[in-house]
Amino acid sequence: MALRDCAPTILEAVRETSPLIQCLTNSVVTSLTANVLLAAGATPAMVDITGEAGPFAALASGLLINLGTPHPEQREAALEAADGAASARTPWVLDPVAIGALTHRTALAHRLVELGPTVVRGNASEIIALLGGGGGGRGPETADDVEAALDAARTIATRHGAVVAVSGPVDAIVSAGRTTRVAGGSPMLTRITGGGCALGALIAAFVAAGRSSGHDPHTATAACHAVYSAAAELAAARATGPGSFQPALLDALDAVRARDLDRVTITEEAA
Amino acid sequence: MALRDCAPTILEAVRETSPLIQCLTNSVVTSLTANVLLAAGATPAMVDITGEAGPFAALASGLLINLGTPHPEQREAALEAADGAASARTPWVLDPVAIGALTHRTALAHRLVELGPTVVRGNASEIIALLGGGGGGRGPETADDVEAALDAARTIATRHGAVVAVSGPVDAIVSAGRTTRVAGGSPMLTRITGGGCALGALIAAFVAAGRSSGHDPHTATAACHAVYSAAAELAAARATGPGSFQPALLDALDAVRARDLDRVTITEEAA
Amino acid sequence: MALRDCAPTILEAVRETSPLIQCLTNSVVTSLTANVLLAAGATPAMVDITGEAGPFAALASGLLINLGTPHPEQREAALEAADGAASARTPWVLDPVAIGALTHRTALAHRLVELGPTVVRGNASEIIALLGGGGGGRGPETADDVEAALDAARTIATRHGAVVAVSGPVDAIVSAGRTTRVAGGSPMLTRITGGGCALGALIAAFVAAGRSSGHDPHTATAACHAVYSAAAELAAARATGPGSFQPALLDALDAVRARDLDRVTITEEAA
Repeated sequence: MALRDCAPTILEAVRETSPLIQCLTNSVVTSLTANVLLAAGATPAMVDITGEAGPFAALASGLLINLGTPHPEQREAALEAADGAASARTPWVLDPVAIGALTHRTALAHRLVELGPTVVRGNASEIIALLGGGGGGRGPETADDVEAALDAARTIATRHGAVVAVSGPVDAIVSAGRTTRVAGGSPMLTRITGGGCALGALIAAFVAAGRSSGHDPHTATAACHAVYSAAAELAAARATGPGSFQPALLDALDAVRARDLDRVTITEEAA
Repeated sequence: MALRDCAPTILEAVRETSPLIQCLTNSVVTSLTANVLLAAGATPAMVDITGEAGPFAALASGLLINLGTPHPEQREAALEAADGAASARTPWVLDPVAIGALTHRTALAHRLVELGPTVVRGNASEIIALLGGGGGGRGPETADDVEAALDAARTIATRHGAVVAVSGPVDAIVSAGRTTRVAGGSPMLTRITGGGCALGALIAAFVAAGRSSGHDPHTATAACHAVYSAAAELAAARATGPGSFQPALLDALDAVRARDLDRVTITEEAA
Repeated sequence: MALRDCAPTILEAVRETSPLIQCLTNSVVTSLTANVLLAAGATPAMVDITGEAGPFAALASGLLINLGTPHPEQREAALEAADGAASARTPWVLDPVAIGALTHRTALAHRLVELGPTVVRGNASEIIALLGGGGGGRGPETADDVEAALDAARTIATRHGAVVAVSGPVDAIVSAGRTTRVAGGSPMLTRITGGGCALGALIAAFVAAGRSSGHDPHTATAACHAVYSAAAELAAARATGPGSFQPALLDALDAVRARDLDRVTITEEAA
């Protein structure tokens, strides 16, 4: 089935099954991330301390580990959660925010990717840095193009058996022998904090719901990008600036329907 | 005096005295919580580190301890703040978020309830788990009905001399020999993160203002639920989704007047 | 050149150069702070852990250290970041939130001011407390008038070579031999959490952009207050309460133009 036809099915599964998504994420975006999950129909749970993060990862439907503000307690909890997810086969997403020049998060990202994330999500600079290249972006900003990160994405995908999603004006979702591109969305997503971080959590929800509806992680990840981009376009059409864009994005994630996916261009290739 | 008539008086006291409410709360909802307090006329202060939390609790008008993301430093600070509040007779609210299966917060909640909170606020699953029953909800979600938690609420109320407020489609406020139900509000409150957590902080403000205007904690807690539910209805009528509901809720808390309480049904019984 | 004429130039420089502003700030306002920077055209990076904070401060265009919730890890990181900024001559802003009665943050503020911040920003009570006087405000609230803090501000400015910005209904920006007053803005800024904290981050962006466009830190700080006040007035005119004011403020920071500065009264004196 074409991705355009799968996406509404997976979105519906998110709304019907309300997957429980555990998030270990950064202090800047916790609220937006929880609200994005709720607006889309999922259930957030920000369980990010040692002693709770591991056991909860075994119960959750999906897990996000985002390295935006990796305080010592959260770094330990991240490893614990990734272990818990691996043991229980809970799908999980790694978002290696701003790795490259910053030492703690870079070292942690390299350890985490060895634990087998289902999906790795980041901008081009972060994906290149995860493979050990580049000089890192300016914090969460990317210095590189999506297309420049495709080789790194394919290497990570093959080496770790992960789906690698690279965000940019045209997103690329890469796994061994398969590349999907999603064009659309809105530059407004880069004018608010957490647009990409919240997408990482939503990918975990789509992968979890995709599993229950018979869709592989690559398809679910690409479907999530398509739905998110469509919602961002709907929101940008109603917003009068970056401030009004954020509530409009949440309203749009609640309201987005299959026909809205016409706003997005999806292309697939075997490579 | 009927609760419907007390509620506007206590709301007015919040706006006139602007009680200083110390919050030790979770990282997801700090901003919404502070904004809810400000919109209602209170003054928030998020003082949640050891060495500061205890002394400040002796100065504050009211205190909230919410266990949503209980990092080690905050766990120690919570005990310190509860002690400080007890010594200075500062009214305080305990919100045992997502206790049950999660070990650290469950153990901490059991210690804190022994320190004599003025009010315990939670959903049905959390109140049942605070008494040692149930299997816990799915994170902040509740798996139980309000009515199913009434026995647990009454036991906690009697044993600890606390007001116990159970949130749900119809809220129940319970203390020894007295039950108040508040029907109204909006399901939109469950579509944003922190709707219940912010209510916990607002209860502290109402109890503090109630004290200065001659109302007991049970009355003040029920009045707070009534005002919050009325504001939520006003907001839902203006919102176009969960994103626009949040700013609308803050606008409504600023604008809500006595006549808006007609949107809410309040019933009282001696039991 | 008059400040009214410099302000649009520096605003334009923020939008064109997008200065990278590192923030160590409190858990309540991280999201608003990042969004204010993004709306104005700057790039936020919340790098606030030891081992990363120092090296990053040497790369950043500007730095904010805000003491609103100074957890132990962040207190160490703040000292590391201030050292990194001093070594690399990165301009930095100190916001001593709620110092006075609260011990940890007061001790830390006194250490940090010795490290030579470019700008100190606070309300009147905080500026008085930084010099060792007063009894502290009620948390982030101020108990004193701006004019009552001018002597303290001038002493700090002279002793530490800093610009000292005191927020209130009429803001005062003070440095050795120079005082600028900015009247305007909106009382709505005190009805949301983080209005002042986000201004501290924006000052860092204006000082960084001012440096690249040939303006001294005093001029850049005053320009920032003027732009922020003008944006707040634009936002208040569109808002229907404190909830809608926040997105409107972000929209206004994106939209504000030179002619909007007519809403603000700027006066300068040599003293």
